[in-house]
Amino acid sequence: RINGDRLWDSLMEMAKIGPGVAGGNNRQTLTDEDAEGRALFQSWCEAAGCSMGLDQMGNMFAMRAGADPDALPVYVGSHLDTQPTGGKYDGVLGVLGGLEIIRTLNDLDVKTKHPIVVTNFTNEEGTRYAPAMLSSGVFAGIHTQDWAYDRLDAEGKKFGDELKRIGWRGDEEVGARKMHAFFELHIEQGPILEAEGKDIGVVTHGQGLSWTQVTIKGKDSHTGSTPMPMRKNTGLGMARMLEKVDEIAWSHAPHAVGAAGHIDVYPNSRNVIPGKVVFTVDFRSPDLSVIEDMEARLRTEGQKIVDEMGLTISFEKVGGFDPVAFDEGCVTAVRSAAERLGYSHQDIISGAGHDACWINQVAPTAMVMCPCVDGLSHNEAEEISKEWASAGTDVLMHAVVETAEI
Amino acid sequence: RINGDRLWDSLMEMAKIGPGVAGGNNRQTLTDEDAEGRALFQSWCEAAGCSMGLDQMGNMFAMRAGADPDALPVYVGSHLDTQPTGGKYDGVLGVLGGLEIIRTLNDLDVKTKHPIVVTNFTNEEGTRYAPAMLSSGVFAGIHTQDWAYDRLDAEGKKFGDELKRIGWRGDEEVGARKMHAFFELHIEQGPILEAEGKDIGVVTHGQGLSWTQVTIKGKDSHTGSTPMPMRKNTGLGMARMLEKVDEIAWSHAPHAVGAAGHIDVYPNSRNVIPGKVVFTVDFRSPDLSVIEDMEARLRTEGQKIVDEMGLTISFEKVGGFDPVAFDEGCVTAVRSAAERLGYSHQDIISGAGHDACWINQVAPTAMVMCPCVDGLSHNEAEEISKEWASAGTDVLMHAVVETAEI
Ligand SMILES: NC(=O)NCCC(=O)O
Ligand SMILES: NC(=O)NCCC(=O)O
Repeated sequence: RINGDRLWDSLMEMAKIGPGVAGGNNRQTLTDEDAEGRALFQSWCEAAGCSMGLDQMGNMFAMRAGADPDALPVYVGSHLDTQPTGGKYDGVLGVLGGLEIIRTLNDLDVKTKHPIVVTNFTNEEGTRYAPAMLSSGVFAGIHTQDWAYDRLDAEGKKFGDELKRIGWRGDEEVGARKMHAFFELHIEQGPILEAEGKDIGVVTHGQGLSWTQVTIKGKDSHTGSTPMPMRKNTGLGMARMLEKVDEIAWSHAPHAVGAAGHIDVYPNSRNVIPGKVVFTVDFRSPDLSVIEDMEARLRTEGQKIVDEMGLTISFEKVGGFDPVAFDEGCVTAVRSAAERLGYSHQDIISGAGHDACWINQVAPTAMVMCPCVDGLSHNEAEEISKEWASAGTDVLMHAVVETAEI
Repeated sequence: RINGDRLWDSLMEMAKIGPGVAGGNNRQTLTDEDAEGRALFQSWCEAAGCSMGLDQMGNMFAMRAGADPDALPVYVGSHLDTQPTGGKYDGVLGVLGGLEIIRTLNDLDVKTKHPIVVTNFTNEEGTRYAPAMLSSGVFAGIHTQDWAYDRLDAEGKKFGDELKRIGWRGDEEVGARKMHAFFELHIEQGPILEAEGKDIGVVTHGQGLSWTQVTIKGKDSHTGSTPMPMRKNTGLGMARMLEKVDEIAWSHAPHAVGAAGHIDVYPNSRNVIPGKVVFTVDFRSPDLSVIEDMEARLRTEGQKIVDEMGLTISFEKVGGFDPVAFDEGCVTAVRSAAERLGYSHQDIISGAGHDACWINQVAPTAMVMCPCVDGLSHNEAEEISKEWASAGTDVLMHAVVETAEI
């Protein structure tokens, strides 16, 4: 069993970096706070006897050597970056849970055949730079590194420049590492496990995601002196589309969700009818055909709405991945570990995207989930219990050690 | 007649300060560009032999002496600040038109009994600091100066601090000046005069305005893993209210307008259901009871919408003024001037708010309007012809000189 108190202390220590305004964290990718969090993680890994690798996307790889020099490492990990108003566990638990495995194996003086590598993937959240899971995506060959480097944040700063600025661009070629397997521990970020009273979610699938950035153009004009019939109000066009997004998602419920989290209105002045709005629609489903249907309806219905209003519209897909089925062997390793350890568990589909979803394309992969209070995540009030964190990390360790072989 | 070329050259010269991105201007109040525009205006006024007064709200008063030392001055003017994506004429024409009167009277060596004062009021637009017409409002005793100083911009900077920072906070007590009369020349910002083929609008009334800032609170949560029935999506709540705002305004059309120009969504991240939105609803009508009805329905209907969605809502009135009837004597002076000069004209109600609306409370006031192309304003593409500008300034001069007496 892992040391739950030590794990918890490390989680609380990391949460001091980039504190939020309401008890959570704002440690967005490639900020100074991200750099500080990385440095702390590195110091812990080195203290645990690991050597640190760093690739050109800033992905970190802390390795505990194995007994067999020819054996490919078993990887564990997740991400240390957070939402602007994020929680203390989303991603962090998966990275520090990986570190806790190393510390426990050190304590017990257990040597595995395969090395074990704890990973921190850069920009999983996708807030500052779309798409989410950018660097595990480059690792898995989904995006090119040049394309990733050119991603812009809201202030027009490039990903590549910011990665260099914070001092975490390494030399290692991205994706050159071969993995024997990959395991990611993550909080559920949804309400199912807590409602079912289960300690562990054995993640068999991940639902797919589609991010469509919508731009509506009309005409800036005076809110007071422009007669109602002459208005080209893109704010109203957006309102009608947001209603439609909700309607489309509900039409497939419970097998789909949809909303817009990002909305920018221009020029955003109280007495100017907005001549331009840009917003991103997030549709998800475990079923690819449902995602495709929602995307298609968004475009058709959106076009209809703006045509009636004399506005114009354009759509750009800025992120997405197909539904994922995780590796049967790895999933079984997770399920048997939970079983062996006597934790209550159930199979579950991940509602969120994870680095594991991309890594699954290049290595046998599975995920372990633990419950979170009220299913709440992407919120500073995100909470888990020490027991849940310990149980998840125990299961992670047993699945990893079984795969890495003693 | 005034010198139309000289007026136009000055307009074009001023437009070089704080250029926009599409041919217009971004010279928002209390920015460095605002300071630069003020300095240029001051240098022109001094070259025309005027002495400059500056009050504690940064309102500028360029005086051309009159023959009678006891006679109260006749004031003309408007504002030099612009929208973030504003035009070259909104406000500026009224200030530089006033300067052109002084220059013309100098050329003709005409001495008036009453002094003539050209005014630039601070923060008319209300974009950076709500409410609009803030400093003419303090001048007229509507707001206290302390309250005005405490207004915050989106970055949390105080009006009073920024006024001091740009170096345009004067010593003169605000509102201490007594006015014999006030005249404001402004572009219509609406489509009526152009459609009717009229050179001049004789502004008899101004419609009233109500700005209500609406805050809806729900719960930030993950766009992927939060089931549809558990969502507290404030973006969707806002969408429903924007539809309602449009419906309420149409229910009173053509005697009312309504829209939201300002919308902020929090945390504004693609994969976070917005837990908070703040937006400002702008309702206007020439009829006070219509404004009151719209305000009341906004609150009732808004409450109903959020109650159904499990969200909470709060309303704050952040700006507004009642419909205005301008001074009959001053209005007649404008109408007779247009008549005398042979310009086509018609009575008109101002759709926008103006400094004149507040000054009307402390001095006999009227406005002159000239057409603008396609009725377009609060847009960088705002346009007028040199002839329209000249005609408006001619009428302004004749109304002013008649009132200031030769
Ligand atoms: N786990 C998580 O919140 N990942 C961010 C990507 C997503 O939106 O699902
Ligand atoms: N004239 C003008 O655009 N003033 C700004 C105040 C308003 O929104 O009416």
